[in-house]
Amino acid sequence: MSASSINLAVIPGDGIGPEVIAEAVKVLEKAVAAEGVTLEQTHYKLGAQHWLETGETLPDEVLADLRTRDAILFGAVGAAPGDTRIPSGIIEREMLLKLRFSLDHYVNLRPSRLYGTVGSPLANPGAIDFIVVREGTEGPYVGNGGTLRGGTPHEVATEVSLNTAHGVERVVRDAFRRASERPRKHVTLVHKHNVLVFAGHLWKRTVEAVAREFPEVTHDYLHIDAATIFMVTDPSRFDVIVTDNLFGDILTDLAAAVTGGIGLAASGNINMDRTAPSMFEPVHGSAPDIAGQQKADPTAAILSAVLLLDHLGYTTAARKIEAAVVADVENRDGKPRSTAAIGDAIAAAL
Amino acid sequence: MSASSINLAVIPGDGIGPEVIAEAVKVLEKAVAAEGVTLEQTHYKLGAQHWLETGETLPDEVLADLRTRDAILFGAVGAAPGDTRIPSGIIEREMLLKLRFSLDHYVNLRPSRLYGTVGSPLANPGAIDFIVVREGTEGPYVGNGGTLRGGTPHEVATEVSLNTAHGVERVVRDAFRRASERPRKHVTLVHKHNVLVFAGHLWKRTVEAVAREFPEVTHDYLHIDAATIFMVTDPSRFDVIVTDNLFGDILTDLAAAVTGGIGLAASGNINMDRTAPSMFEPVHGSAPDIAGQQKADPTAAILSAVLLLDHLGYTTAARKIEAAVVADVENRDGKPRSTAAIGDAIAAAL
Ligand SMILES: CC(C)[C@H](C(=O)O)[C@@H](O)C(=O)O
Ligand SMILES: CC(C)[C@H](C(=O)O)[C@@H](O)C(=O)O
Repeated sequence: MSASSINLAVIPGDGIGPEVIAEAVKVLEKAVAAEGVTLEQTHYKLGAQHWLETGETLPDEVLADLRTRDAILFGAVGAAPGDTRIPSGIIEREMLLKLRFSLDHYVNLRPSRLYGTVGSPLANPGAIDFIVVREGTEGPYVGNGGTLRGGTPHEVATEVSLNTAHGVERVVRDAFRRASERPRKHVTLVHKHNVLVFAGHLWKRTVEAVAREFPEVTHDYLHIDAATIFMVTDPSRFDVIVTDNLFGDILTDLAAAVTGGIGLAASGNINMDRTAPSMFEPVHGSAPDIAGQQKADPTAAILSAVLLLDHLGYTTAARKIEAAVVADVENRDGKPRSTAAIGDAIAAAL
Repeated sequence: MSASSINLAVIPGDGIGPEVIAEAVKVLEKAVAAEGVTLEQTHYKLGAQHWLETGETLPDEVLADLRTRDAILFGAVGAAPGDTRIPSGIIEREMLLKLRFSLDHYVNLRPSRLYGTVGSPLANPGAIDFIVVREGTEGPYVGNGGTLRGGTPHEVATEVSLNTAHGVERVVRDAFRRASERPRKHVTLVHKHNVLVFAGHLWKRTVEAVAREFPEVTHDYLHIDAATIFMVTDPSRFDVIVTDNLFGDILTDLAAAVTGGIGLAASGNINMDRTAPSMFEPVHGSAPDIAGQQKADPTAAILSAVLLLDHLGYTTAARKIEAAVVADVENRDGKPRSTAAIGDAIAAAL
């Protein structure tokens, strides 16, 4: 990665992916240009539509090529819900999750912040500003399960959650490090260790051990069920949440909902060791029902580009985009704007 | 079970358990007496406090004795969070979950309803009235996991989710049957089949198959992450949710929160084949911080007694208590009342 150019992989994907990514690229390009940095883009055709045309999910050569880039900007993938031509979940697993696992994206970073006027469904949301550090490379997401006597009355289906000291420790340490740089310096571990004893205790023990390295950071623990209650009754209590892959999936969609919807929720799939490029994507899906209509909100994609810039060290450009987004979001009056109009407004405000 | 007496097992448990159960028994006794039915009670000392005194969780003789009862009314178990004398989760697993599994409580029934004036944290909750049919005897709750190289940097911890055609089919059929008796006749399967392929597809296939037996019932599917979003943006869309043990745990705490808190959330752990007694318990925990102070709301325990009466076929008494609870809840003015005062008010209104 050089200071004067970013070698960016762009995977627009399906549905509203291309529309929101176009705006994110527009804003990104303008923000880094002001710092004298050029954006070199390589676009990749991947996703459900691409699978329908070619039968390819993520060929090895494409994965190898992606590894040569500084970072990946990802839109969304997924076919229309009614489309039975695509085996369910194949794009998610053989493309999106394959990227996260192959590129060792162990920190799935998902910030949640409630912007002034943005409509939370909560009556009294309070000041919400937390990040979820979701483990991204193990847990129940490893695809390690099977079916015995499938389709018979004696079928048994298993799913194995795999958790390693290596995998848990590095993500927990990342969470504590991030907490140590935030004003409130607090980490909440979310798990279900009273039931998932083996995985849960690995997580608990690891948090206790890593906490000793960060004496300035406080920490507590919540079961996942209790955490969802607090997410709607007192979300401002959270500062940094660290949790496993599946609990993080659930909690971040809920967090997005309470902070005004997935139109604003950004995420980074980060390899903190920088042995492979990290990938930044809005939390929302491909929303085939509104695709191609310029109805999607590109804000989540643009905020994902902010996380990308932060990861690559372009913090000045990151803060500029962030300020422009906050100003835009806080001044929304509810009048519908096209995807491009929102992108243009944010780009203009840089 | 005889028409003129109910042979009831009562497990008050820890913390606020005894206080809320006292009110539930008071209301239950009065309601069935009006139908000429007597309540024969056998109280069992079980829970964290009992473990501290005796080292017993759930002895075989006690389990055998419980099997002879018509139904079990359960308060709550669990030590104070700071109490390190009790190995974490031992009471939950070796007592509460052991009861659910041993007595084959495969339908974990958790109704959610928003009563007129009760404070939901949502700005616009709408008319919420759904039930969650949570599987209670398999999934990630089976305790099937392990630790390799524990406490070393090479530790691997696993958790296995076990799902059987037998287990999934019976709970899915129960959900469809319940839906067929409700005005909206709609079942939503909640899972994560795009990631948890093996278990997810067993659930999906089973729902498709059972749906054919209930042509009058419509059904749809939501991933667990999307379901949590709808739970805060549009909870009135739900009628009957059927889901696995862990997703059901998460979703029902969230549902309790959006319908005004776990002070109102009732549950039944039901063996629909009646090969063992079913168990009814408030969703809330033992809340050691307010125990013994008459601060707990007994409504969830009283509504659990309603589910108990319904299960045993005492529907007249059940409807009477339910009406008294609704009247009480809808007329709350926010002034604090003691646990006993709430129980007395509901008993008086019968
Ligand atoms: C599409 C799906 C596989 C994915 C996940 O479960 O991680 C999505 O829900 C997310 O949160 O990014
Ligand atoms: C106490 C715990 C084991 C239990 C569960 O996870 O089922 C509780 O959360 C519940 O929902 O009844």
